[in-house]
Amino acid sequence: MATLIEYEQASDEVRAVYDDIRATRKTEYINNFWKALAVHPPTLKRTWEMVKSVMAQPGALDPLTRELIYIAVSLTNNCEYCVASHSTAARAKGMTDEMYAELVSIVGLANMTNRLAHGFNVPVDDVFRR
Amino acid sequence: MATLIEYEQASDEVRAVYDDIRATRKTEYINNFWKALAVHPPTLKRTWEMVKSVMAQPGALDPLTRELIYIAVSLTNNCEYCVASHSTAARAKGMTDEMYAELVSIVGLANMTNRLAHGFNVPVDDVFRR
Amino acid sequence: MATLIEYEQASDEVRAVYDDIRATRKTEYINNFWKALAVHPPTLKRTWEMVKSVMAQPGALDPLTRELIYIAVSLTNNCEYCVASHSTAARAKGMTDEMYAELVSIVGLANMTNRLAHGFNVPVDDVFRR
Amino acid sequence: MATLIEYEQASDEVRAVYDDIRATRKTEYINNFWKALAVHPPTLKRTWEMVKSVMAQPGALDPLTRELIYIAVSLTNNCEYCVASHSTAARAKGMTDEMYAELVSIVGLANMTNRLAHGFNVPVDDVFRR
Amino acid sequence: MATLIEYEQASDEVRAVYDDIRATRKTEYINNFWKALAVHPPTLKRTWEMVKSVMAQPGALDPLTRELIYIAVSLTNNCEYCVASHSTAARAKGMTDEMYAELVSIVGLANMTNRLAHGFNVPVDDVFRR
Amino acid sequence: MATLIEYEQASDEVRAVYDDIRATRKTEYINNFWKALAVHPPTLKRTWEMVKSVMAQPGALDPLTRELIYIAVSLTNNCEYCVASHSTAARAKGMTDEMYAELVSIVGLANMTNRLAHGFNVPVDDVFRR
Repeated sequence: MATLIEYEQASDEVRAVYDDIRATRKTEYINNFWKALAVHPPTLKRTWEMVKSVMAQPGALDPLTRELIYIAVSLTNNCEYCVASHSTAARAKGMTDEMYAELVSIVGLANMTNRLAHGFNVPVDDVFRR
Repeated sequence: MATLIEYEQASDEVRAVYDDIRATRKTEYINNFWKALAVHPPTLKRTWEMVKSVMAQPGALDPLTRELIYIAVSLTNNCEYCVASHSTAARAKGMTDEMYAELVSIVGLANMTNRLAHGFNVPVDDVFRR
Repeated sequence: MATLIEYEQASDEVRAVYDDIRATRKTEYINNFWKALAVHPPTLKRTWEMVKSVMAQPGALDPLTRELIYIAVSLTNNCEYCVASHSTAARAKGMTDEMYAELVSIVGLANMTNRLAHGFNVPVDDVFRR
Repeated sequence: MATLIEYEQASDEVRAVYDDIRATRKTEYINNFWKALAVHPPTLKRTWEMVKSVMAQPGALDPLTRELIYIAVSLTNNCEYCVASHSTAARAKGMTDEMYAELVSIVGLANMTNRLAHGFNVPVDDVFRR
Repeated sequence: MATLIEYEQASDEVRAVYDDIRATRKTEYINNFWKALAVHPPTLKRTWEMVKSVMAQPGALDPLTRELIYIAVSLTNNCEYCVASHSTAARAKGMTDEMYAELVSIVGLANMTNRLAHGFNVPVDDVFRR
Repeated sequence: MATLIEYEQASDEVRAVYDDIRATRKTEYINNFWKALAVHPPTLKRTWEMVKSVMAQPGALDPLTRELIYIAVSLTNNCEYCVASHSTAARAKGMTDEMYAELVSIVGLANMTNRLAHGFNVPVDDVFRR
C-alpha cells in the first residue's frame, strides 16, 4: 500500500505544490497520485510542473481532447489508476458514455492494426513521408 | 518485404473491398496497408469493415479526434507505419504541427505517469470509482 | 551494428555451444542471434540451454505450435528479428501462408480485445476461475 | 465495476448478438466480456463479428492452436480477463496442464529473446528474408 | 489462484531445486514464485538455473544494481509480483526509500522520452553508433 | 525525417536551453533528440528540465546506475534512439562491454519472469508487502 501524505502532515515544500494543484484545478481535492508522490518531494514537484504545463496551459488542443489522449495511452498500458482518474477528469470536461465507448473502440482497433502492419511487414507509403 | 496486391491483379473479392475504400474515403489512393492485407482476403475484408465502422461512421467523436487517439496508441506501441499513415490522415483533417507536438507531449507524459502510479502503488480514489 | 563471432574466431567455450546448436538442429548454419550473443559467452550458453530445453525437447506441444506461439509474442512486442527467424523456422516445420495470415489475425484480435476488456473493466466470470 | 447487460434487459439489437453467440458456441452461457460490451451495441456487434470470423470459422489453424496463440498475446500484455477466459476455452478444446505450462514457458522465453535481439542489435540474416 | 507446491509435498526433483535456492540465498524461505513454477518441474529447474546464473553469480555489476535493473523492467511491464519481490530483495541489499523513488523517477522519465524520440522521429546521431 | 533545429537558426528561447544543456553536460555537442524537440519550444524546455532534474542532479543513485536503469527501460520498449544515446552516455561514465552484456541479460530475464509470474498467477508473498 502506498504511503499517502495528507496536507496537515506535509512539509512546506509539499504544501506549496498542493496549494498550486488546488489553485490550478479550482478544487480542494488532492487525489491519491499526488499524495503518494509526496513521499519524494522532488518527484512530486517536477511531475506536477510537467502535468500542469502539458495538461493545464492553453494550447492547440482543447482540454477534453487532451484527456482522451491520456486515457488512450493508459488503456494501452493497462494502468488502472490512470484510466480511472483521467476518465473522471474527462467526464467533468464533457465526455459522455458514448464518447468513452468510441474511445475504447479506437484504442482496441489501433492496438490490432499496429500488429497487422508489423505482421504483414507493410512498407511506409511515399506519400506518408514528410 | 510485403507482397502488395495491386487492383489490376486483385480478385473480385479484393476489388470489392478496394472499391469500398475508395468510395468511403473519396480518393483513388489505396495505401500499402490494404495492399498487404489483400494476400489474405478474409483479413482484408473484416479489418476494413472494422476500420470503416470505427473510424468512418458518424458518432460522438469528430474525425480528427479519432485520428489523434489512433496516433496516441501507435506512438505508445512504437508502430512506425501507423504513426505515418494516421498522421497524414490527421493533417488532412486539420492537425497542425502545434497540435501534433502537443499530442506527442501528452503521450510521453501519460507513459511516464502510468509507471509512477504503479511504482508508488497508488490506490484508486473512491471518487474515481463509478 | 552487432559484433558477430564466427566459428573460426570463437573460443572453445563458444565453439562447444555452436557445435551443440548444429547437432540439435541438424544444420551447419548458425544464425546471427547466436553469433551476436557470443560476445558474452555466459549469455550465449545459458540462452541456448533454455532455448534448447523449451523449444527442442519432446513435450506436449508439437514443434510447429511452439513456433507459432513464439511468433505471436514477437509480433506483439514488435521484434523484427524474432519474427523473421521464427517465421523461417515455422515454415520449415509446415507453416503455410494461410496459417501465417491466420496467426497474424489472431494476434491482432487479441491485442484489440485485451484493451476492450480493460476499457470496459470486465470482471472475470466465476466459471473462469479455477 | 462494469455495467453488465443481461439478456432480459437487452435491446433487440443486443439480443440478436447474444443469440448468435449462443448458436455459434453451442452454449447458453454469455460471458461477462459480451455483457460489458453491450453497453455500446456497435462495439458489441463488430467485435463479435470479428471474433466469430477469426476464431470460429474453418481455417488452416485448428481451434486449440488459435486459443494458445490468443493466450500468448494476453500473457504478454498482462490481461487477466483474457488469460482466464481463453484458458477456459482452451481447456475445453483439450489443453492439459502440461500444455499450459509449456505455453507459458515459450511466452516467457520469447519475451526474453525479443530483448536480447534488440540489446545485441542483431541484424536479420539474409536467409530469413523472403 | 496458483497451485503452490510446498517442500513436504514436493518430488525429489523439485526438492533439489528448493535446496539449491536455499543454499544459494542463505535462507530457508522459498517464495511463491518458485512454489508456483514447481507444478511444472522443467520450468522450475531451467528458470532457477537462469536466475541463479544471471543474478547470483559474480560479475561486473554489483547485486544491488542488478535488482534495480530488474525492478525497472518490472515497473515498465506492470508486473506487481516482480516489483514486490525484487523491491524486497533490493532493500535487503541496501536500497533506501530515496533510491527507490529515484529509480521510479528514472523509469517514468525513460518511458516518456522513448515516446518523444519516436514521435519526433529522431535519427540516431553518428557519434552514438559504434 | 525529423526537422533538426541548429543553434544558429534557433530562437532565443531554444538557445537558452541549448546553452544550459552545454553547461550542464560540459560539452559543446547537442544531440539530435534536443534538436528535434526544439520544433516545439515548450516541449524542449520542460523535457530538458525534467531530464536535468532526474539525471544530472545529486542524489542517492550514482550517474552510471541511472544510465543503466534508463537503458533497461529503453530495451524493454524497443527504443533504438534511447538505447544508442544512453549506452554512449553510460560508456562515458564507465560502462564496460561486460557490464552492458550483463545488463541486457537481466533485462531479458526480467521480461521472461514477468510473464511467468502472470502465467502461473503467483500471489504476492505476505513478506513482500510493506
